[in-house]
Amino acid sequence: MVRGFLLDLDGTVYDGGQPIPGAPEAIVRLKQMGYALRFVTNTTSRDRAALVDKLNGMGVTVTVNDIFAPPYAAARYLRKEQASAMLLLTESARQEFGDVPTGGDRPDTVVVGDMGEQWTFAAFNRAFRALMDGAGLIALGMSRYWRTADGKLSLDTGPFVAALQFASGVEPIVLGKPALPFFEMARLDLGLEPDEIAMVGDDIEGDVGGAQRAGMTGILVRTGKFREADLRGEVRPDMILDSLAELPAAVATGSPPSPPTLGGAE
Amino acid sequence: MVRGFLLDLDGTVYDGGQPIPGAPEAIVRLKQMGYALRFVTNTTSRDRAALVDKLNGMGVTVTVNDIFAPPYAAARYLRKEQASAMLLLTESARQEFGDVPTGGDRPDTVVVGDMGEQWTFAAFNRAFRALMDGAGLIALGMSRYWRTADGKLSLDTGPFVAALQFASGVEPIVLGKPALPFFEMARLDLGLEPDEIAMVGDDIEGDVGGAQRAGMTGILVRTGKFREADLRGEVRPDMILDSLAELPAAVATGSPPSPPTLGGAE
Repeated sequence: MVRGFLLDLDGTVYDGGQPIPGAPEAIVRLKQMGYALRFVTNTTSRDRAALVDKLNGMGVTVTVNDIFAPPYAAARYLRKEQASAMLLLTESARQEFGDVPTGGDRPDTVVVGDMGEQWTFAAFNRAFRALMDGAGLIALGMSRYWRTADGKLSLDTGPFVAALQFASGVEPIVLGKPALPFFEMARLDLGLEPDEIAMVGDDIEGDVGGAQRAGMTGILVRTGKFREADLRGEVRPDMILDSLAELPAAVATGSPPSPPTLGGAE
Repeated sequence: MVRGFLLDLDGTVYDGGQPIPGAPEAIVRLKQMGYALRFVTNTTSRDRAALVDKLNGMGVTVTVNDIFAPPYAAARYLRKEQASAMLLLTESARQEFGDVPTGGDRPDTVVVGDMGEQWTFAAFNRAFRALMDGAGLIALGMSRYWRTADGKLSLDTGPFVAALQFASGVEPIVLGKPALPFFEMARLDLGLEPDEIAMVGDDIEGDVGGAQRAGMTGILVRTGKFREADLRGEVRPDMILDSLAELPAAVATGSPPSPPTLGGAE
């Protein structure tokens, strides 16, 4: 019995700067139907307030509490552990960590997200030294790269975490899809059991595979980065929809959703 | 029958800015005895001319042809392959690559060495894109870090190569100790067979282990980074000397050198 949804943002609710047709209406409808919702994204370069502004600008009405993203998850984790943190993050992402102490050159933890052009050798080396002095490592996702607005590839968080891990030998805790601790924190944020939650996204591995490994239902949408080849891999979605716009009708006909026919994939 | 020596530099011939006592005289003596010599270093931030200046300043008389270092090895490799190369290297290390074409944004190869403070995200991202477009990857060593003059640790080449490998999936060719292709190129530079060569160094793994895997004799010196614990690992040196100063006397008593007594290590 699905009682709540985790909805991916980029490629599922919007694509670049435009909402997926019918997605804003579907979100309103799901709320009216009584489902608990969280928007779950791996975006590490913005705080939740900036994501709320972006969504509201597209006519998707949300509040900051509707959004579950790695910087917020990491800040919650650090507060719970009462740990200080050196933040390798953009200025926007740092907003989530307001009251978390920095720990100077001897932090309890190093938090690494996507910094893009703001990366410097000095900051990277300082983080490495902190790890060698015993700090833990939190990675806000392990994505290898993303595609910029002009279509070029750009290095994401994962390679920088891999570099720090190679240099220091410290194993990262990954707080981003598809890592289990991240889905587990999102589940606690929803206040539901794994089998009461369905994750909806366009990433067969990061969204569907990650959710399924966390004991949740995984629903794939044919928008964003979806390719037909995704259906020939190891991960088998519990349901496939043309887009998020179809979700209210699909759940109205039966819940949990029944497995789809996958054509020649069987 | 050892006919030539590969001598490590830092920790073996000199320590920081000072020669190891007796090392310059030992080098002169080995040359007089008719041994072929090459100084083999993993230094990737300087060209050979800069290393010659440093050695000559310490009273160790060498020429550029006596030195075998990763930038030189990579430049030779690229000339042989007639390949263009994007160079993530210091200005000094680039000197070795004078006539190697850069290939613009579509090089055949990306060469990565230690850039320290000269590292920028833009150059790193450009290299990543070249790898995604099909370029090969040459790593000038995979060292994790080095200790600066003020005693602090600083990220070396390895972590940056690991990041590019993680991001692109491209496997690097490593041209630095202890990688086999590097020892093989040094061997060809000496013009001898593996069993005619002994490597002398303070790094049990990088110098001794690497040389032994290349079929050479591995001699450990108790200077530089040597620690007694090095003798309790998997690599067993063929000979152990208090310092390079002892080498001429040791080889005069019999060649190839006989295995040492390792105390309780047997």
